[in-house]
Amino acid sequence: MSPVSPEFQRVIDLLAKLPGLGPRSARRVALHLVKRKDATMRPLAKALEEAADAIRTCSTCGNLDTHDPCTICSDARRDVSAICVVEEVGDLWALERARVFKGCYHVLGGTLSALEGVGPGDLNIAPLIDRASAETVTEVILAVDATVDGQATAHYLMDQLEGADVIISHLAHGVPVGGELDYLDEGTLAAALKARRPF
Amino acid sequence: MSPVSPEFQRVIDLLAKLPGLGPRSARRVALHLVKRKDATMRPLAKALEEAADAIRTCSTCGNLDTHDPCTICSDARRDVSAICVVEEVGDLWALERARVFKGCYHVLGGTLSALEGVGPGDLNIAPLIDRASAETVTEVILAVDATVDGQATAHYLMDQLEGADVIISHLAHGVPVGGELDYLDEGTLAAALKARRPF
Repeated sequence: MSPVSPEFQRVIDLLAKLPGLGPRSARRVALHLVKRKDATMRPLAKALEEAADAIRTCSTCGNLDTHDPCTICSDARRDVSAICVVEEVGDLWALERARVFKGCYHVLGGTLSALEGVGPGDLNIAPLIDRASAETVTEVILAVDATVDGQATAHYLMDQLEGADVIISHLAHGVPVGGELDYLDEGTLAAALKARRPF
Repeated sequence: MSPVSPEFQRVIDLLAKLPGLGPRSARRVALHLVKRKDATMRPLAKALEEAADAIRTCSTCGNLDTHDPCTICSDARRDVSAICVVEEVGDLWALERARVFKGCYHVLGGTLSALEGVGPGDLNIAPLIDRASAETVTEVILAVDATVDGQATAHYLMDQLEGADVIISHLAHGVPVGGELDYLDEGTLAAALKARRPF
């Protein structure tokens, strides 16, 4: 007989399915929580419930926010002529932390993937083509990951955006700021050298 | 302005405090959850709430269970003459998974630590001395971690248990089953060699 009660096991099973956690770390987290019922466990339960109620997907760009349209889409100070296409909301957050882009976003919700059976219909692509075809939009930045699936998705989007009268760009490849050359792969170094800029 | 709504940020902040998770992995987990509101996020919130309500500390041994005394303490088939002392409930679970020990447990709730200011009064030690002094108890196994703090705790417990008429034992040191000699430290190898057994 297992020494773990069903209520406890259920918490462990749900935690073990989260990204980056396995059965062992889920047990550790569950024990940590039960030792801190009022300081962490109940507040987390409440925060999860409240966030699940409050957070919705922006019907314009696919961002996750408590408002629809989201804070970014409804911000009059943002430049509506540029749309930055990202795979996931986490990428949008990362770009916002960089505080450089003042345009709008479009979250695809993943990449095309033949292996995982993700086709164009599974992604937030058709609304992007509609948005990009609007008169106001002049540039679409494809800020997808530099992975095989990401690049395949970028090429598909370029084909689809052919009819729209927009400049299509992608993020520059190069040496990460603070990165050491010694640790970089040949592809990145070759791209950085090819795209070298005068001091 | 942060692109992350306060409700979302609260979930991330609470997740980031869990063992093994940092701000980055907490963001990843939070986004994973919000994408699976009904499949994972709400069930997890509910499971946490239910477990927080149901799980209590066994007043006899310090185990966490929905019953008090816990399932192990109230199991008439367990041998009450042997008490296995462990640091945390996770250690109790690990020993139960080994399915070898049929006695009872005592969970200390940590180890003595001068550095972290954990004294004997902060641990579940006094009830252990009481339990060990009972007529029925003949053996106390100190199954604490083989760390400096664990061993200091074991020595303190041996002193305290001097008055009780019990055999005090500790877990054997040696080569882990399935372990490769090449990867073991000298201390473990020396202990394993000293305690060698005839085939």
